[in-house]
Amino acid sequence: MNFSYCLPVNLLFGRGEISKVGKEVARYGKKVLIVTGKNSTKKTGLLDRTVNLLEEEKVKYEVFDKVEQNPLTTTVYEGVHIIKETGCDVVLGLGGGSIMDAAKSIAFSAKNDGDISEYIFGIKQGNEALPIVLVPTTCGTGSEGNCFSVLTNPETKDKKSLRTNVIIAKTSIIDPELMTTMPRNILASVGFDALAHNMEAYVSKIGQPLSDMQALYGIKLLAEHLPKIYNNPENLESWEKVSLASTLGGMVIGVAGVTAPHGMEHPASGLYDIVHGKGLAALTPIIVEDSWRFSSEKYKDISKILGGSGAEDCSEAIIEFLKKIDLKVTLGELGVKEKDVEWMAENCMKVSRPSIINHPRKFNFEEVKEIYYRAL
Amino acid sequence: MNFSYCLPVNLLFGRGEISKVGKEVARYGKKVLIVTGKNSTKKTGLLDRTVNLLEEEKVKYEVFDKVEQNPLTTTVYEGVHIIKETGCDVVLGLGGGSIMDAAKSIAFSAKNDGDISEYIFGIKQGNEALPIVLVPTTCGTGSEGNCFSVLTNPETKDKKSLRTNVIIAKTSIIDPELMTTMPRNILASVGFDALAHNMEAYVSKIGQPLSDMQALYGIKLLAEHLPKIYNNPENLESWEKVSLASTLGGMVIGVAGVTAPHGMEHPASGLYDIVHGKGLAALTPIIVEDSWRFSSEKYKDISKILGGSGAEDCSEAIIEFLKKIDLKVTLGELGVKEKDVEWMAENCMKVSRPSIINHPRKFNFEEVKEIYYRAL
Repeated sequence: MNFSYCLPVNLLFGRGEISKVGKEVARYGKKVLIVTGKNSTKKTGLLDRTVNLLEEEKVKYEVFDKVEQNPLTTTVYEGVHIIKETGCDVVLGLGGGSIMDAAKSIAFSAKNDGDISEYIFGIKQGNEALPIVLVPTTCGTGSEGNCFSVLTNPETKDKKSLRTNVIIAKTSIIDPELMTTMPRNILASVGFDALAHNMEAYVSKIGQPLSDMQALYGIKLLAEHLPKIYNNPENLESWEKVSLASTLGGMVIGVAGVTAPHGMEHPASGLYDIVHGKGLAALTPIIVEDSWRFSSEKYKDISKILGGSGAEDCSEAIIEFLKKIDLKVTLGELGVKEKDVEWMAENCMKVSRPSIINHPRKFNFEEVKEIYYRAL
Repeated sequence: MNFSYCLPVNLLFGRGEISKVGKEVARYGKKVLIVTGKNSTKKTGLLDRTVNLLEEEKVKYEVFDKVEQNPLTTTVYEGVHIIKETGCDVVLGLGGGSIMDAAKSIAFSAKNDGDISEYIFGIKQGNEALPIVLVPTTCGTGSEGNCFSVLTNPETKDKKSLRTNVIIAKTSIIDPELMTTMPRNILASVGFDALAHNMEAYVSKIGQPLSDMQALYGIKLLAEHLPKIYNNPENLESWEKVSLASTLGGMVIGVAGVTAPHGMEHPASGLYDIVHGKGLAALTPIIVEDSWRFSSEKYKDISKILGGSGAEDCSEAIIEFLKKIDLKVTLGELGVKEKDVEWMAENCMKVSRPSIINHPRKFNFEEVKEIYYRAL
């Protein structure tokens, strides 16, 4: 049992904590690039509210609202361009996972020239970034609690994460009240992403006691509270629990990594711009069916929390859970075709290698292909 | 449920991790003040080994080996004097809780002039310290995982902690193999201190989900593994578990604080130089007996882990646990006299006020006195 653990983010958690965003940003800079979505933070008024809080602290700002669902490396360069033109010295990510991931990579690329894909693939190393403050408005990615930023290269379709401690946020403000405006279908898919993070980190070969403990707690919170808010969005106490579980999910994958479900989903959503949580929903039960024998104690723990009786019915327990949030789906329904399987399996073995290595069962190329076929 | 959580220490955990001490110290400075005990690290060879590892990295050093069991504010000034005379720019604490606490305060006072008691009592604030690396050789204090440094002022006998994030270690190396040379009686008392930290943080009024989860895990690990290594010091896997639980205990009190047992023990060990874990052993069961009704769910959790059946027999479950490690003791046996009770109760209400406030039951002066009498 040897491990290292360091997570220097300052987590500010709770209803109403968004009121601190101006003061937090002001601690790190004088002019902030606000990275946000095309619509939602404008519709909900969160962007205006944030701007007011920044102005109260005399922080200047620029808004960058061009980030797409699966953020592209090219979009990151657009953000960096604004930073360099306007002299921003701190980055605020205000939105869901794509927004936060884009914000992290923009802060990184502002300090590290050249092709970000080279940093993603470990060809080059960066050792600094602009200071980052993150405010999640969805409870799925957990990006506010780790060192990852997942990007898609539009040329190669490679979807892969930049992983470096320099992009851990200085402060993350997790305010459950900001999540409650999410449409139900989005809640289901981001919530399942959070569950997948906790489950995958829990079974990961590079897990350790601190991440195991956090992951198991995250699974418990989501098993109980995600269906509750899916059926009753007025339940603020359950929103708190789901938001916390989402941050825990981000924290644990930062330590223990993800495993095969994320590893196999990325090629699919890299190729077709699929909603990430749906891709996971299509793949996870099949992968677990083929994996539980290789880590039966841990899959048993997961299964029992989800209402199953042991490792052997963990896959079914996940399917039952997906039914509760109307997320039972196949890759075929999401647009993936038989002809794509070969490319996805090749891409998975190349781009998602670390996730495949962390998985309790060692899958080879043929086995990965077979799982894709069964998931169609 | 609003909380903030930030613990920027880099924890390096595991057997053999001590081999990294030279490289870690070299990251933060060129000349290190090694704060260590009068005997044990010399006898075990750890000091020599550390010096070799530092020399390999071309780090210069000075040794300060004057720290006593309950470190005095005056001892801290001696350490600072050496730093100022020799130009050390980083501090390494190599030893038990007293050593690590002294190292933290020395690193603080090297950057903050004047009477350290004024910082302890919040009259003055400091916002920097020399970088600190900690290597625990006992598994009790958890000082490697938090922002506390407990000192005793020899003039006033006040025993109270300096609490500031600037004294959180940059890196803490927790190597279970370094603990195994501890004599059995010391293991019992430091191990019970670790259990007390986890139990007190778990019931603390200012606890939060992350500290609750960690504390409960710490209690589980200690309940199972502390008696195992007490009876069989060859059991290295259990040493790992106890070491981890000790660090968790430090982490959770850093977030959730301690409660009445620590609050009431400090006046006793401030007055008589009592072994801290023994003082806790004398007081904890009596305090729990008077407190379980005020947080019955949490005391039930603790009781069940320790082999009890519910909150109502939590105190007995703790007594049974103390018997397993031969630590059933009274304050009278430790040298405290009836005539001391008045002073201790007064000192507790003054110096330990935060711990008394965190406690689930609000104790007044007369109640504190009565507990001391019953503990004699």
